[in-house]
Amino acid sequence: MSEHAAPARRRGRPRGRSDARQRIVTAATAEFSELGYDGATMRGIAGRAGVDAALLHHYFGTKADLFGEIVGAPMRPDLKIPEILAGPREQVGEAIVRYVLDVWEQPEARRRGILVMRTAIGNKLATPLLAGFLSRELLGRIAADIGTPDAELRSGLIATQVAGLLLARYVLRLAPLADASVDELVAWVAPSVQRYLDAPSP
Amino acid sequence: MSEHAAPARRRGRPRGRSDARQRIVTAATAEFSELGYDGATMRGIAGRAGVDAALLHHYFGTKADLFGEIVGAPMRPDLKIPEILAGPREQVGEAIVRYVLDVWEQPEARRRGILVMRTAIGNKLATPLLAGFLSRELLGRIAADIGTPDAELRSGLIATQVAGLLLARYVLRLAPLADASVDELVAWVAPSVQRYLDAPSP
Repeated sequence: MSEHAAPARRRGRPRGRSDARQRIVTAATAEFSELGYDGATMRGIAGRAGVDAALLHHYFGTKADLFGEIVGAPMRPDLKIPEILAGPREQVGEAIVRYVLDVWEQPEARRRGILVMRTAIGNKLATPLLAGFLSRELLGRIAADIGTPDAELRSGLIATQVAGLLLARYVLRLAPLADASVDELVAWVAPSVQRYLDAPSP
Repeated sequence: MSEHAAPARRRGRPRGRSDARQRIVTAATAEFSELGYDGATMRGIAGRAGVDAALLHHYFGTKADLFGEIVGAPMRPDLKIPEILAGPREQVGEAIVRYVLDVWEQPEARRRGILVMRTAIGNKLATPLLAGFLSRELLGRIAADIGTPDAELRSGLIATQVAGLLLARYVLRLAPLADASVDELVAWVAPSVQRYLDAPSP
């Protein structure tokens, strides 16, 4: 299965462990590509890689952890958003916008974020994979927290504003947005996010 | 220059005219790619194509017309937005969101819109070209109409919300957004756009 025979001169981690990690990454990439984010299972990935499911969890944690590591995700909203949602409700909009911008202001995270966005949008096969991850790990969590019948639509609307901000500032680099400070953008955009979160349905 | 020798059996428009159009399209594509949207000039394109500038204008109109035709633009906001801005100021947010969604609901426009978005975001070379077109023909027009010192930032913020909506609904196809009606989305999103247009600076 693995085409990566380690050279004899290789040092560092024992051969077996490194091979298992590489097999898992290869297997997970195939499983996510074929079945989508929701369809992929940790059991299926372990089976493809020929490793024990316990070993898979030991190396990579949850399915979201594994996906995040494979795509080089610049942020892990599945970890941060619950923390934000646990804070004061009237500050959630601001906290989300500030968190996302603070992450993307870091050069390495921005570089990877732009790459993920370019790939997910430019490549037809990659699009549903990112959409599946976002739906499950980000929008689903926000919706569960909002708890109203229209919660899924509300969390989707938050995604439109945040994704559009990242796209226009960091990918398209539209001048006034690319030059504005984080504080300025937070002050402008946070009320839109907050409105999607808690305004009455129109 | 042209590699397109028309087959002898070809009928329809006279050969010379068709050749000139094709040369213009080839020349314009090269000019836009090399110099960007702002740097490209109708004079430069006419020169590359070896046609008279008057002929170029006769066939293709303005630079925005020519660009729109080359990229297969699904909408021409440079034509529609001034009309919207001339209407009642308190309805501009709603009119923009409704116009954009109504266009993208048409299958052929949607197909081309998705293609333009995938190309402009997925292809590093195409990104500044679309950004240049949007800055000049769309954001610049809205900003000129707003007229305040922060008008460019305001029009950029409108772009974040509208682009994010198109991306999430039509490209990523996030479930609640993809399934919502146009009316429902207009009711939710228009106030955000209106706020960027006329709310006091934060």
